[in-house]
Amino acid sequence: MQAVELIRKKRDGGELSSTEIAWFVQNYTNGQIADYQVSAWLMAIYLRGMNARETTDLTLAMARSGEQLHVRTVIDPVVDKHSTGGVGDKVTLAVAPLVAACGVAVAKMSGRGLGHTGGTIDKLESVEGFNASLSRIEFIDLLLKHGLVLAGQSGDLAPADGKMYALRDVTATVESIPLIAASIMSKKLAIGASHLLLDVKFGSGAFMKDVESASVLARTMVDIGRLSGLHTVAAITSMEQPLGRAVGNALELAEALAILRGTGPDDVSDLCYHEAAELLVMTATVASLAEAEMRVRKAVRSGAALAKLAEVIAAQGGNPRQIEHPELLPAAPVRVMLQAPCSGYLAGIAAERLGLASMQLGAGRFQKGAAIDYRTGFLLQAKVGEYLNVGDPLIEIHARTESEAQAIQPELLACYQWSDSRVKAGPLVYDTLHP
Amino acid sequence: MQAVELIRKKRDGGELSSTEIAWFVQNYTNGQIADYQVSAWLMAIYLRGMNARETTDLTLAMARSGEQLHVRTVIDPVVDKHSTGGVGDKVTLAVAPLVAACGVAVAKMSGRGLGHTGGTIDKLESVEGFNASLSRIEFIDLLLKHGLVLAGQSGDLAPADGKMYALRDVTATVESIPLIAASIMSKKLAIGASHLLLDVKFGSGAFMKDVESASVLARTMVDIGRLSGLHTVAAITSMEQPLGRAVGNALELAEALAILRGTGPDDVSDLCYHEAAELLVMTATVASLAEAEMRVRKAVRSGAALAKLAEVIAAQGGNPRQIEHPELLPAAPVRVMLQAPCSGYLAGIAAERLGLASMQLGAGRFQKGAAIDYRTGFLLQAKVGEYLNVGDPLIEIHARTESEAQAIQPELLACYQWSDSRVKAGPLVYDTLHP
Repeated sequence: MQAVELIRKKRDGGELSSTEIAWFVQNYTNGQIADYQVSAWLMAIYLRGMNARETTDLTLAMARSGEQLHVRTVIDPVVDKHSTGGVGDKVTLAVAPLVAACGVAVAKMSGRGLGHTGGTIDKLESVEGFNASLSRIEFIDLLLKHGLVLAGQSGDLAPADGKMYALRDVTATVESIPLIAASIMSKKLAIGASHLLLDVKFGSGAFMKDVESASVLARTMVDIGRLSGLHTVAAITSMEQPLGRAVGNALELAEALAILRGTGPDDVSDLCYHEAAELLVMTATVASLAEAEMRVRKAVRSGAALAKLAEVIAAQGGNPRQIEHPELLPAAPVRVMLQAPCSGYLAGIAAERLGLASMQLGAGRFQKGAAIDYRTGFLLQAKVGEYLNVGDPLIEIHARTESEAQAIQPELLACYQWSDSRVKAGPLVYDTLHP
Repeated sequence: MQAVELIRKKRDGGELSSTEIAWFVQNYTNGQIADYQVSAWLMAIYLRGMNARETTDLTLAMARSGEQLHVRTVIDPVVDKHSTGGVGDKVTLAVAPLVAACGVAVAKMSGRGLGHTGGTIDKLESVEGFNASLSRIEFIDLLLKHGLVLAGQSGDLAPADGKMYALRDVTATVESIPLIAASIMSKKLAIGASHLLLDVKFGSGAFMKDVESASVLARTMVDIGRLSGLHTVAAITSMEQPLGRAVGNALELAEALAILRGTGPDDVSDLCYHEAAELLVMTATVASLAEAEMRVRKAVRSGAALAKLAEVIAAQGGNPRQIEHPELLPAAPVRVMLQAPCSGYLAGIAAERLGLASMQLGAGRFQKGAAIDYRTGFLLQAKVGEYLNVGDPLIEIHARTESEAQAIQPELLACYQWSDSRVKAGPLVYDTLHP
């Protein structure tokens, strides 16, 4: 087989065989195929597409390019959850302990944030001492002991994906549905859970800007799951405005803790309970979604969900007192309340722009590997659809310095849209796709 | 400007500006843009195309990436001639001295052969002592002194093209009309003649397999010429069967000498006289094509054309006696006449396959830089349309050894198609495109 032949085949719109795809990925991983051939191949895939079978083969080849955890061989069912990322998205932080508290094991590896969307691991690392860098043995051990583990993405998992993603980033081949789907799903397959719930977000704060492309991505990933034996369900959810009220690492963790206590904002709490319930139904732990939601709410009321999170955070070296007493989480020295500049209905909050503003305060990374400030961010005082009078609290700025808190205000005000007539925010869950 | 942005723009079908194209090529040439970005960009160009303006800008940027000869600043008019290559294509060897003998300067740089098509320089190098590696000064000097210079392609000319071609070769981005056109024309623009005659070949022995794609390529190059101030005319000519009767380096040179003497095969002689006449009309040296053909035939009859070639070959260190007495050219030790295996009309001679067969005898290169044997090749005894009886001479094999001459025979016989009914070969010149 020759790399140039496989590039030519895809260039001409041909369908690559399983063997061809496996050969290409394997030889790229071991350095036999040069970057310049891979980037031409990726551009051909970008422009010619891949069908479900090819995409699954690509995903499997990437999953097999490094270590594989096969967690379902040690515990079954075991679930995984993934969000395509958004602003204020702390759903995984709540869903994982909710599901674990209901008796279903959760094996979760998360990435770090880059750009306007935060990373679950960054949020967890606001807890003193918390260690997300786990060996394979530690990961399995925690999973067996606690039915829950929250780790950072291991570089040994699906190394072909890491290598390919770095190349896509500089060759304008990121925004391809098959390549995005294969990248996400390869890491999921390398972990090897029995069930996967995907939260595919659309809207101004999400990677997918419209519901159509989010639906295509979701369907592609559900298909990969079906064709590779991973039971996958995808919720397509709105990211038109930030999720919940908190944006920033410790602030979002605190909001997740409130959700686990039953005192979180309605929109994001309902979404978390719904997704947790979906996982209980998927794994046949509970027969119906209604019954599952009751089980989840019971785990909230009983304190079991919060206790589960505190337990696993302690097991991973974190200070559990910060989970029980969120006021002990790191806090920004400066808090400034920005007031509504006019009266009216809140018609829109530009999520991506707000996420970028939080980065200005240190809450996110402009470059991979950069340090972040866990304390900074925003607490939204109002969401789309609410009526505010001029001077009402609009958004609380949590900043490192007074000057940073001042400097960000014009940008923040520019994130808001107002209307004289009543406005209603759309539903959070647009659709749910099953295999 | 960022490379990834220009890749994205072309990926999305956008039109790149002159500045963007110049920036990209310049930074690739000086090593600032990596191969993996260029290959993604080339694949995007392959699949999205480039309009005439973009293609011209790419051509100009590549022409300006290295040394430029500006030959028309020292002598005007000065013509250049290029063939896209074929099997038995010795046209340039005859046209250049024909035109020079009629008083119009010819500045010609040629490549070496690779694959089934031969290179003009390889053919000239069958002459003892002939030196095609000329410095810029030598090139201009010979041009001024003799009105004719025949050099090898200088690596200092359009280095971006050389670099890009090597990358295209391994990334399946060769067969793109804008990229092929830019590659050819960049070297022509770097030489800087005032007039260019292109011979764009189509058919089984040519790079372009059908007349439609040859016509598009020809039109693209004529447009580049028009937009960059190089008066360009393109003849679209057939390469369905080998051109003339000789295939192989010294054999083809000998046939070119026969054409200059007026004793060459009709088809290829007519083509050479026609193309030489076209150049005389283009440069306004002669008013009409009919008059120009008369001038060309006069240069044949008078011996002026042959004398001109001998003169310049001597000036470039070659043995002019081999030009005056072709029997002194290197000759293969073994000659075997292959006979017609049946009676019938010759319906087809697979040109590419025959070219590949000549490579087996050592006449061509499988790899760049490989040595070739100037002596070997074939002399076709019959062309398409002729009637042969079984046992009639079909093709004379010129080989290094008896065993090679024997081994190639089944392959040679497979190049021939026969018919019981009368067959007529199509015209050699299909069309001529003017600016």
